[in-house]
Formats: sequence, structure tokens, C-alpha cells
Amino acid sequence: MFIAKVTGNVVTTQKVAKMTGTKLLIIEPLCVNETDKTFTSTERSFVAVDSVGAGAGEIVLITQGSSARMTDTTSDAPVDCVIIGIIDSVNVPDGVVYEK
Amino acid sequence: MFIAKVTGNVVTTQKVAKMTGTKLLIIEPLCVNETDKTFTSTERSFVAVDSVGAGAGEIVLITQGSSARMTDTTSDAPVDCVIIGIIDSVNVPDGVVYEK
Amino acid sequence: MFIAKVTGNVVTTQKVAKMTGTKLLIIEPLCVNETDKTFTSTERSFVAVDSVGAGAGEIVLITQGSSARMTDTTSDAPVDCVIIGIIDSVNVPDGVVYEK
Amino acid sequence: MFIAKVTGNVVTTQKVAKMTGTKLLIIEPLCVNETDKTFTSTERSFVAVDSVGAGAGEIVLITQGSSARMTDTTSDAPVDCVIIGIIDSVNVPDGVVYEK
Amino acid sequence: MFIAKVTGNVVTTQKVAKMTGTKLLIIEPLCVNETDKTFTSTERSFVAVDSVGAGAGEIVLITQGSSARMTDTTSDAPVDCVIIGIIDSVNVPDGVVYEK
Repeated sequence: MFIAKVTGNVVTTQKVAKMTGTKLLIIEPLCVNETDKTFTSTERSFVAVDSVGAGAGEIVLITQGSSARMTDTTSDAPVDCVIIGIIDSVNVPDGVVYEK
Repeated sequence: MFIAKVTGNVVTTQKVAKMTGTKLLIIEPLCVNETDKTFTSTERSFVAVDSVGAGAGEIVLITQGSSARMTDTTSDAPVDCVIIGIIDSVNVPDGVVYEK
Repeated sequence: MFIAKVTGNVVTTQKVAKMTGTKLLIIEPLCVNETDKTFTSTERSFVAVDSVGAGAGEIVLITQGSSARMTDTTSDAPVDCVIIGIIDSVNVPDGVVYEK
Repeated sequence: MFIAKVTGNVVTTQKVAKMTGTKLLIIEPLCVNETDKTFTSTERSFVAVDSVGAGAGEIVLITQGSSARMTDTTSDAPVDCVIIGIIDSVNVPDGVVYEK
Repeated sequence: MFIAKVTGNVVTTQKVAKMTGTKLLIIEPLCVNETDKTFTSTERSFVAVDSVGAGAGEIVLITQGSSARMTDTTSDAPVDCVIIGIIDSVNVPDGVVYEK
């Protein structure tokens, strides 16, 4: 899994039937900088199905690949990226990188 | 999933039987630039099976890996990349990145 | 999937039993340059099982991951990369990138 | 699999039900420098489920993808990254890269 | 699959039960340079389960992902990388890149 920031959303009408009703969010993967206790942007973006009620700006936990189908929201759907949690905090031994 | 632009198509006659009749499109993954509200090209290209009737120049939603086999078009086929939707709009909190 | 050029072959005698009799080719992934109508090399190389009778120098279509096991040649084998077609042509809206 | 260092942890309350009770650690993949007998940081970070009782600073073995669901801790969960072992030593022919 | 060089090994005592008795080798992926007929290092390293009796310095064939579980040694184990063959030779149309 990886940590990401929700940066937006995608609207699509013409899509495969199994995707009907899924909420699609744009997420940007973040790296944890242990020394500076900050997040570093990866400058990349993916589209994830939301299974936990996340919103723009929130820091979330992302699962990819076949494991992305292991939630009630995504079971048997052509989904390879899902938000499985909203992150409360990210901690390193000598401090806090992020707190909601 | 990720956002991509359809840039062309691939024709192949000599192929495995399960691929007969599939439409193969060239797609270029795009990144969302939240600040500029633009897409950035990744300068990469993949070949995806079309399951929604997409055409050249359209902005589409791509699923990869085993999840690419979860559509009626690609079920049990040796396919690891599929177009699952045509994107209407991509939105960030303070604006619109793309609108069809 | 992605487009690749067959650049060579690999010979291996000491291997897992399920790989007996498979033809192993070296392939180099290519990117499609839409503007110049050329292929760009990725300078990477993979080894793919041939399921269509491809030869050195040919431009082929590659499937990766679990989907690489969805051909008769690769079913149940420890194979994560397979050639599923020989490409006849690659086309962009205003021209031809490749023709066999 | 790859070698990684545990650099921190992630706390998440609002998450999919199947993730309840899993310990989430931040890990940083390392490369082995055979000549210098040192680890090189990849400057990337992932979140892994701990299945062996690992702690911050430890050098661990990571499995990704669908194989990450093949432990008792992660079976059927939306997990694509798991710690499957705590590393005692990493050895090259003419020396030791790491010893716990 | 890809070509790699075995550069060392990993020892781990505290691990998930299914990994007991597996031999873990460090491998470095190589790229084939068709023009120079040499291998180029990728400067990366992975840990692979050995299923063919490989040793340090040998050039081997690697399978990743769920396909890495398709050998007798790795079946049902949390393994995403396996050595499936020891390479005898790597050939390009006008010469030999490697011979054991």
C-alpha cells in the first residue's frame, strides 16, 4: 500500500456496467521523508475507487492490483486501485510526519 | 486506474485465438497537474483493449493487471490493460482540469 | 499490453519442469512517438514466452502479469510475460508509425 | 521480494472492515550495493502489513501484489504489501552487507 | 521474465511459517545491450526464491508476481519473485551476449 493525497475527482458516464455508482477520486502518491518529517510529492496521479468516504485534500491509504478487488465496493469489478482507509497519523521514531 | 489519451491503434493478424475481434488502441498515460489545471504527458505508451467504444483523441480511464480481465470484453483473455470508461470531466477543488 | 521488438533469444537447460519446450525471446519495449511517427526505445529488456511464432527483429504485442498465463502455451506455467501477437501496423490519426 | 527498512507507522481509524486490527508500518525499499557492501536508499516509501512482529529500524523482507495475501494475517484482505520476515544477514560472496 | 545476476543471499530466522526452508538469493536485474553485446546493470536488487539450485555469480531467469507461485517450491507461499532457470546463453542475431 502507499500513502496518497486526494486531489480531485473524475466523472465518467460511458463506462463498463460494473463501474456504475462507484466514486472515482484522483490521488497523488506521497513519500515519507523520515528526516524532515514531511511528505514528498511523487508528481504522479492515479484514479482510485473510494470505499471509505474520502474527500478532496484528505490523506488516504491506497491498495493496488488484484488486492484492490478485496473490498465490498470493488469485488469483481475492473478496479486496480482503491482507497481502503483515511489516515489519522503517520509517525516516525522521533516525531510525527502527519496528524489529521 | 489512470487517465490516458487515445493516440492511435494497433492492427495484428497473427495472434492468439482469444484475441480475435478485440479492438486494440494505443494509449498515453496522463498525470493531473493540480496547480496548473492541466494534464502532463508521461511520454509512455501502452496498448489497451477497448470495451466502451473509445476513439482517437478521447480521454479515457484505464485499468491494468488481472483486473483488466473483469470486463465482458476481456474475460479469460491474455489482456492486462483495458479502457473501462470515457472521461467526461476531471475536477480539482478550485477548478476544472478537463471537460469533454 | 505494450509494443516491443524481438532482439534475441535465451537458452536455458536447467529450469523448472513446467518451462520445458517453451521458446524464450528477448524483447525491448517501445514507446510510440505520435508527433514524429516513430518508435522510441525504452532501453529496457525482458524475456517473453513466444506463443505466436515470432522471430528476431519483429514488432510484437506483449502481455504481462497473471494475464500472461491466459494462453494455451503458458497456462499454469511460471510465466509473467508472453508474446500474444505479431503487429501488422501501428497507426495514429494523421499517419502510420509502423507497417510490417 | 525486496529488502526494506521499517521507518515508521500509520494509524487509521476509518477503514474497510477487513483491515481492523492490522499493524501498518512504513517501509523504505533498499538496494544492495555489492561492491561497497552497503545498502542504498531508494527514497521511496510504502505501507506494509506486519505479519512477523517487526519494529522501527529493523531490516525486513517484503512481498508485494497478490502474493501479499498468502499469509495468515493478510488472507482475503485488500493488502498488496506485507512483511514476511525479519532479516538476520545479507551476504555477498566476499563479505557481509548487513548483520542484525 | 527478466535476466538477472545472483549477487548474494539473505538469511532470515523470524519469518512466516510458509517460508521455512526456502533459499533466498539477492538478484540484480540486467538489461541486454544489443549493439555492444553486453549486459547493463539496472543498479536495483530484489530477493528471489531459488527453485533450480542457483549460486552466486550465475545468470538466471526471474519470474515475478502471481506467476512466481507457479513452481513446486513456491506454491501457495507469499512469494512474488522466483528463479525459474539458469541461463546457458543469450543470443542476438549477429552474435552472443552471454555464454555460460
